[in-house]
Amino acid sequence: MVFILNPDVAKEKVDEFVLGWEQKGFSTILSVGTEHTAVCLIGNTAGVDLDHVVETNDIVSYGKRITEQYKVVNRTVHEASTVIRVGDVTIGEGFFTVISGPCSVESNEQILEIAQSVKKSGAKILRGGAFKPRTSPYAFQGKQAEGLEMLRMAKKETGLPIVSEIMNQTQIDLFEDVDIVQVGARNMQNFDLLRAVGGIKKPVLLKRGLANTIEELLMSAEYIVAAGNPQVILCERGIRSFETMTRNTLDLSAVVLLKQKSHLPVIADPSHASGIRSLVPPLAKAILVVGADGLMVETHNNPAQALCDGAQSLDLAQFNTLMEELRERAVLEHKIM
Amino acid sequence: MVFILNPDVAKEKVDEFVLGWEQKGFSTILSVGTEHTAVCLIGNTAGVDLDHVVETNDIVSYGKRITEQYKVVNRTVHEASTVIRVGDVTIGEGFFTVISGPCSVESNEQILEIAQSVKKSGAKILRGGAFKPRTSPYAFQGKQAEGLEMLRMAKKETGLPIVSEIMNQTQIDLFEDVDIVQVGARNMQNFDLLRAVGGIKKPVLLKRGLANTIEELLMSAEYIVAAGNPQVILCERGIRSFETMTRNTLDLSAVVLLKQKSHLPVIADPSHASGIRSLVPPLAKAILVVGADGLMVETHNNPAQALCDGAQSLDLAQFNTLMEELRERAVLEHKIM
Amino acid sequence: MVFILNPDVAKEKVDEFVLGWEQKGFSTILSVGTEHTAVCLIGNTAGVDLDHVVETNDIVSYGKRITEQYKVVNRTVHEASTVIRVGDVTIGEGFFTVISGPCSVESNEQILEIAQSVKKSGAKILRGGAFKPRTSPYAFQGKQAEGLEMLRMAKKETGLPIVSEIMNQTQIDLFEDVDIVQVGARNMQNFDLLRAVGGIKKPVLLKRGLANTIEELLMSAEYIVAAGNPQVILCERGIRSFETMTRNTLDLSAVVLLKQKSHLPVIADPSHASGIRSLVPPLAKAILVVGADGLMVETHNNPAQALCDGAQSLDLAQFNTLMEELRERAVLEHKIM
Amino acid sequence: MVFILNPDVAKEKVDEFVLGWEQKGFSTILSVGTEHTAVCLIGNTAGVDLDHVVETNDIVSYGKRITEQYKVVNRTVHEASTVIRVGDVTIGEGFFTVISGPCSVESNEQILEIAQSVKKSGAKILRGGAFKPRTSPYAFQGKQAEGLEMLRMAKKETGLPIVSEIMNQTQIDLFEDVDIVQVGARNMQNFDLLRAVGGIKKPVLLKRGLANTIEELLMSAEYIVAAGNPQVILCERGIRSFETMTRNTLDLSAVVLLKQKSHLPVIADPSHASGIRSLVPPLAKAILVVGADGLMVETHNNPAQALCDGAQSLDLAQFNTLMEELRERAVLEHKIM
Repeated sequence: MVFILNPDVAKEKVDEFVLGWEQKGFSTILSVGTEHTAVCLIGNTAGVDLDHVVETNDIVSYGKRITEQYKVVNRTVHEASTVIRVGDVTIGEGFFTVISGPCSVESNEQILEIAQSVKKSGAKILRGGAFKPRTSPYAFQGKQAEGLEMLRMAKKETGLPIVSEIMNQTQIDLFEDVDIVQVGARNMQNFDLLRAVGGIKKPVLLKRGLANTIEELLMSAEYIVAAGNPQVILCERGIRSFETMTRNTLDLSAVVLLKQKSHLPVIADPSHASGIRSLVPPLAKAILVVGADGLMVETHNNPAQALCDGAQSLDLAQFNTLMEELRERAVLEHKIM
Repeated sequence: MVFILNPDVAKEKVDEFVLGWEQKGFSTILSVGTEHTAVCLIGNTAGVDLDHVVETNDIVSYGKRITEQYKVVNRTVHEASTVIRVGDVTIGEGFFTVISGPCSVESNEQILEIAQSVKKSGAKILRGGAFKPRTSPYAFQGKQAEGLEMLRMAKKETGLPIVSEIMNQTQIDLFEDVDIVQVGARNMQNFDLLRAVGGIKKPVLLKRGLANTIEELLMSAEYIVAAGNPQVILCERGIRSFETMTRNTLDLSAVVLLKQKSHLPVIADPSHASGIRSLVPPLAKAILVVGADGLMVETHNNPAQALCDGAQSLDLAQFNTLMEELRERAVLEHKIM
Repeated sequence: MVFILNPDVAKEKVDEFVLGWEQKGFSTILSVGTEHTAVCLIGNTAGVDLDHVVETNDIVSYGKRITEQYKVVNRTVHEASTVIRVGDVTIGEGFFTVISGPCSVESNEQILEIAQSVKKSGAKILRGGAFKPRTSPYAFQGKQAEGLEMLRMAKKETGLPIVSEIMNQTQIDLFEDVDIVQVGARNMQNFDLLRAVGGIKKPVLLKRGLANTIEELLMSAEYIVAAGNPQVILCERGIRSFETMTRNTLDLSAVVLLKQKSHLPVIADPSHASGIRSLVPPLAKAILVVGADGLMVETHNNPAQALCDGAQSLDLAQFNTLMEELRERAVLEHKIM
Repeated sequence: MVFILNPDVAKEKVDEFVLGWEQKGFSTILSVGTEHTAVCLIGNTAGVDLDHVVETNDIVSYGKRITEQYKVVNRTVHEASTVIRVGDVTIGEGFFTVISGPCSVESNEQILEIAQSVKKSGAKILRGGAFKPRTSPYAFQGKQAEGLEMLRMAKKETGLPIVSEIMNQTQIDLFEDVDIVQVGARNMQNFDLLRAVGGIKKPVLLKRGLANTIEELLMSAEYIVAAGNPQVILCERGIRSFETMTRNTLDLSAVVLLKQKSHLPVIADPSHASGIRSLVPPLAKAILVVGADGLMVETHNNPAQALCDGAQSLDLAQFNTLMEELRERAVLEHKIM
């Protein structure tokens, strides 16, 4: 159950309202949105008379029951889409924000060359893996802390905010200068990590697990928001199916449904979804036109020599061409790039 | 192995060349494409000296080994895309041909109203199910032969070519006036039906089975073309995955890969892929921008009362709006609608 | 809704009862089971007062609502399991009937040698493919009508009943001497074929489609039984999943659930389920202990030279060993082999 | 590449041999098995002349190339199966070890009653969840540290070793008194956790992820063993498929293949695999006969009131009956229970 509050209610009135519910045994989550503040009740609300609450509390504009298991991330709580700001960059409704960079940070020269190039092409955020989850213990595991240092340098040189994947909750301090913390697909249901990034004050990019449903992704986002961090960006990156010609199967219906069911920003990753370079540009355009709020795409200055995922990385010229194609199309979608 | 012939070779020269191979125990398929004629050898070609064949046969321009199991539908055989004509309508590279109509033909009034409306909105081909494959024996099974009669009437009134699904090879005569014969997803590996439609002189719309790989779809197309009918249109319509929020999972990578690997036209069906009306327009736009040659979309004059699949059908106004959106976008994709 | 009739009701009384329902607009299916006769009503039974019907019709013992979509195959209609007899052979509760033979009939010598050997080892029914559904049009398609002739000969020589796969409804006459007609996985939703085998007077072995749910399998069985043929044997043969190390994923829960939800006999096929010879014996034992009524297993006198599926076929000695292991275990499961 | 050493080689000889390889740039893993000690080389061994190494090193009995990505867990390294001992309990070839207990530890009374009962029925190890990974942040998350305390008490009272799930690497100290540390399905590719449990001196029960392949499971085991802990027990617990009638699809082929490809013990969990109580006993028997080394099954003294997964838990009498059925069958499988 959610109660939408009137605008400009005094803080002590809100606290009093919240306290009343907690004394009745409910948990509450206060959710400040673009247009209004909402109070979500967690617990068995079957016995609550919604109309009575609205009538007897003059700070409450209206209330609604939420039938889904996800509450605070539910579109019912905030009809207006959540918009997230990272420095000068905006992620959310009305924008199409492109995040780009290498699968793995390899050296200062590599990350700087890529950062400068993708910035020039129009990318707004730099991605780069420092800690790499790899199926084999013998595969390259990323440059680790040193990789984060290289990213920081590239950020300083180019002004691009940076996003990188966190592997576990003990690393949170390491990510102090990282602007957006990424929770990878394999960690989508690492609930302790979700709770931990729910305690930080910066955006979290949450990737869908390769065999997780849309509802499970929303429940994982709920973990983060319920823990106190409303800045969650959802990311579709392909699911595991029986098809073997592609690495995964990009589920674009998920992008549309996530936007319908939640107020959170939704982006997609065509690189991991396909695993094949030549599929990335057409899928990227598809991601734009279905209504995603952005794109995460892997680029490399020398894909043939990349230490990780070279086969799915665009080179810098290909990325530049893709960005031109996206800009032409973004106008029709009323998206600012 | 395929041999690309020089232009304007005399028929008897070709026959002689083909006969030579058949005498050596190979099967051959003569494939006439947009730009050239090709001779495919089927059999164990490990011992064939490709260069020697080219040097000693002056009708042969060049030859190539085909490593894939699919031969005549392989892009290697015809670099230029196959373009199919149905009356005035073109399906293939450079075009974006929209097929629309109800899941099921219900009455003369229904099909005529829909046909006139979708024609006005820009659809080029009318679809309508007469024989309906239904999971339950107690569900509406379609108007059957009478439904084909209604379609024929709508074709006569509007001039739109018609496409309808065939259920088995004994029905081929019934489909005499149907312009494009559809083989449904459940029949994609009904090999006797594939051979049968390989013997007719009209285009076949072949839908991907709900658990079939891209390669298996190409092998099923190979059945039809190898049986003598080169006019096959491939159709992606969503695959079965673990996700339950949508009816199926639309696999847009498949559209791109099918276009890369085969010279046949490729379209997609967002209605069956999602099963949800509100997902159809965004997915339709995505189908356009990934490079499909067309779209098959369900429309109904009264979706709430439809005898079949109402929840995924657009009403006529929604379809008209979608067509406007598609036309705006088709220009950028260099597609004629 | 189903009405269980009292024992020994006069035929005219039953006809009268049935006629009454049909006059009210319901379809009815009369189902004669091992313990009683039942009348299933098909149609909207929401307005039918079940108690009233029982009270006012003295031929009715009791009635039940059936909430599932499958009606006549539902365990609710017949608590006692359906038992099917083919000559001297019994398939159903209390028995564990082994069907064995080659993927494909290749020659008189081959099929006879295999038939004699598997009979000696304890197989009760001979399988052999005459018409083979193959992904590639260039692969061996079976010996066709000639293959059926060879099977007939082996049946005559050994006395073993035979089972073989039908590809489409035009072949029904060809299968006159085949004791059990198999509908393959790819044809599980070939509804015209289901209706056709619903019109014959012999058992049908219905294999689960590789991406079909348990409920869909039961609905396909319902097609056959509703068309008049109550002798359906369900067969689990592995489903398509993301795992690539095996050909399919054997779903043993399906065997248990099918036995719970339906009164029809249920068998399983470990050969197609795994595609790997060394997995067949352990899976066969698992099929026995979960409660299946039988097993279909591929054997070949010379697997290395088999024209089809050699890698998953047991040789005759391996089959003999497996049968010994199964017999030892069948006692504990109270199954007659 | 692996080198199998002769028996009774002096430690300094082995160290010298290992050092030689490390000086050439290879990583090495020393693996002490039931029958022999092996040295695995990790790195590009294409240039290593295997025969030459065997001839020139008299401590080496023979060597083999390992083509699979998993090395130390590979059956090639140890033909003899790894057998793990926990107190008096043995897990591995020749045994069928049953682990039982509640999904979640709820109280001292509950865990003690269950522990005493399952011990009496023949279970050898007690399971109980203290930290519960739950899809919803609002669902019961387990009794946490207090739950571990209750387990410890039950262990003390009954003498049963205990197994419980760890959620992240910061909890390792908390698990000091836990005999077997379980890594859950959602954490199968939490590589930092795998490395962490690779550093402890007790057995790790590694569950297959719900969308992970057999090969990926072996690679995750490789992480643990390569990090220094050879005591890994693999657990199949059902994979995610399109079927919705069961919670997951139990993959028994995986059990057989894991035993073939690795020397590690393999068990299975029919409770999570099916999610339905009535399926647990038949699946448990199937797990025995395919050759698993044990079983993990959920039991509860009052399933209807269980705080977690009640629908799939056996009550104590049902478990006792199952154990009797398993004991009867274990004799034929030459398994000690």
